[in-house]
Amino acid sequence: MARINDNFTKLPGSYLFSEIGRRVSAYKAENPGKDIISLGIGDVTQPLVPSVIRALHEAVDEMSKKETFKGYGPDRGYDFLLNAIAENDYKARGVDISTEEIFISDGAKSDCGNIGDIFSTDNIVAVCDPVYPVYVDTNAMAGRAGDYGPDGRWTKLVYMPCTADNGFIPAIPEKIPDMIYLCFPNNPTGAMATKEQLKLWVDYANRHGSVILYDAAYEAYISEPDLPHSIFEIDGARECAIEFRSFSKTAGFTGTRCAYTVVPKELKRDGVSLHQLWARRQSTKFNGVSYIVQRGAAAIYTEQGKSETRAVIDYYMSNAKVIREGLMKAGLTVFGGVNAPYIWAKTPDGMKSWDCFDKLLKEAGVVTTPGVGFGPSGEGYIRLTAFGSAEATAEAVRRIVSIL
Amino acid sequence: MARINDNFTKLPGSYLFSEIGRRVSAYKAENPGKDIISLGIGDVTQPLVPSVIRALHEAVDEMSKKETFKGYGPDRGYDFLLNAIAENDYKARGVDISTEEIFISDGAKSDCGNIGDIFSTDNIVAVCDPVYPVYVDTNAMAGRAGDYGPDGRWTKLVYMPCTADNGFIPAIPEKIPDMIYLCFPNNPTGAMATKEQLKLWVDYANRHGSVILYDAAYEAYISEPDLPHSIFEIDGARECAIEFRSFSKTAGFTGTRCAYTVVPKELKRDGVSLHQLWARRQSTKFNGVSYIVQRGAAAIYTEQGKSETRAVIDYYMSNAKVIREGLMKAGLTVFGGVNAPYIWAKTPDGMKSWDCFDKLLKEAGVVTTPGVGFGPSGEGYIRLTAFGSAEATAEAVRRIVSIL
Repeated sequence: MARINDNFTKLPGSYLFSEIGRRVSAYKAENPGKDIISLGIGDVTQPLVPSVIRALHEAVDEMSKKETFKGYGPDRGYDFLLNAIAENDYKARGVDISTEEIFISDGAKSDCGNIGDIFSTDNIVAVCDPVYPVYVDTNAMAGRAGDYGPDGRWTKLVYMPCTADNGFIPAIPEKIPDMIYLCFPNNPTGAMATKEQLKLWVDYANRHGSVILYDAAYEAYISEPDLPHSIFEIDGARECAIEFRSFSKTAGFTGTRCAYTVVPKELKRDGVSLHQLWARRQSTKFNGVSYIVQRGAAAIYTEQGKSETRAVIDYYMSNAKVIREGLMKAGLTVFGGVNAPYIWAKTPDGMKSWDCFDKLLKEAGVVTTPGVGFGPSGEGYIRLTAFGSAEATAEAVRRIVSIL
Repeated sequence: MARINDNFTKLPGSYLFSEIGRRVSAYKAENPGKDIISLGIGDVTQPLVPSVIRALHEAVDEMSKKETFKGYGPDRGYDFLLNAIAENDYKARGVDISTEEIFISDGAKSDCGNIGDIFSTDNIVAVCDPVYPVYVDTNAMAGRAGDYGPDGRWTKLVYMPCTADNGFIPAIPEKIPDMIYLCFPNNPTGAMATKEQLKLWVDYANRHGSVILYDAAYEAYISEPDLPHSIFEIDGARECAIEFRSFSKTAGFTGTRCAYTVVPKELKRDGVSLHQLWARRQSTKFNGVSYIVQRGAAAIYTEQGKSETRAVIDYYMSNAKVIREGLMKAGLTVFGGVNAPYIWAKTPDGMKSWDCFDKLLKEAGVVTTPGVGFGPSGEGYIRLTAFGSAEATAEAVRRIVSIL
């Protein structure tokens, strides 16, 4: 008799977004014709930029001719994309990452989830609270999280509260974790860590042999100078960190699918190279990203591609500014939205996250994400995203301000 | 101190294809200018068909406009593709598969590997011998294979020999496995199972609560009538089987990346729906296939797309015939190549697989795959693929015939 992986049965329902969907649907059914604006889910709305479109068309044409047709690609991705990444995302910032250390993939979500394959299931895992649920759920599936308690916490996870008091930068936990998930710019709080703050983590990880799993999917949204765009800008990170990057938010690739992960060659545990383990994992369980999509991604790094993508990011960041300033004018305490496309707002009068969500849905017709859905320390917050259209965003903010 | 997944260290080097590469490179270095033809690796060479190219271009154009741009897609894939699959791959063959049971993915290799996530690591796994190495390696990574012995076998796997004596259809093993990998049309032997043969397996699995992991990636190459194109053509399979399909060989998508997996809703173990587990696994660790690629895949199912893809498959299958008949004329005993793009040939005079590989490389300038690389029972065989160009294939066969 085949047995299932019992850890799956410990997972609570995919509570957050299904519950949001349920409440929105119910409200729409009761209020047909009412105009609802969603600033809830973190999905982009602007089209792919012309340089990317052109590259995609050219690659499709290559696939139509025997002479230029591409079958299976190289395991880690094509050199044209690996070189563009190493050059632009690293060398241009003074960071030396070799193309051999880069693994192209179909998404940071896949990589953040699948990376667990190369680690022992008895490692202690630390996550920020609030947190992107994928880190938690994938470790729960692997058996590293223990059991899910009535307080919304897993028994074996180390939770690192990120609150207004610590500027949403987690403090070093008392219990020493083996795997540490960090995400900067942060989803959902929009916070960004300085080099000095990351240096503390890198030194800590090196002292204890922990591995930092660094999610930099929102790196392109950093606007202030002197902030680290990569964990590898920090001395010592090559010995303790793996970095996840994505084109989803950088270039509107949420529906096009391309990302990459960097595993430095120096990173070893139990005397074994994690780079070799990940290479083996990927070559055995993955067959690369579509050639067409890799060509599209490479176009982001051309001069024109850079300026076109920058314009889209600026567009979203001006939405962020509209949301930030609007909510502040309405008297809310607001975080994020400067180096990240997320705005993390304290609910008025200590209202619970879900109560605030309901109020904004019913009175303003605006969908947000209740902060508590990202973890217990998110209670009393709501998350808004800057990925809508400028018009809808401005209208949503106007409505929120008018009811508060 | 983070600990690695020790199971990875038990894996032997990716012996087969790296050793082939090493020998070919060494030979080329010693014999510069010598024309080498590869019938070794199973990769397609013909371009994508016009219907697919057109659909890809149209989808790229959609991504360029705000009104038609697509961000995150539905978890299991777009309805237009799910409907085309359910209608053409199942309903047209009298099989009732609902679109909700289909999960679009980036490759059968990913799915065959990742499916292990939903099963307990103490399940007993049965594989054919010879076998596609991904089933073995991914189970080794998960800890289900035990240790790799000097005889080329893993201590905990149940090996099911597929030899000329049993027509390359495995016999029911003595030890009852929980997870049974079957692949028809078979890679590497090219064998195909009848409905009666599959019925024995389905009944066996239902009797013991085993789950059949059925890889039908080469289904499009079945040429004889009355053979099952899907495990779900067999009564009882909905209670015991998961099926993997791919567009890689069906429509030349090895570099374009699209596949799908079917998990029927009736399939339960430990009282839990495997469909729900896989849905949860995929929605947590995967973010779907590029919209552009899904549009390309859907075009395979249009009337013109079907006839164009059929022509490419016929082209490869006429290569298969050339290889089959050529080797038979040369006095070899040959299997496969009728319902599969693989030809499985007994080496002359009981020669070892690697000796025959070397002989064909050095005397004929033809790269094959040594059968023993797929498992101990592959010793004394070589595999040739039909995916080359017609000209190169004919030339390769002429050279082989001339030296044997």
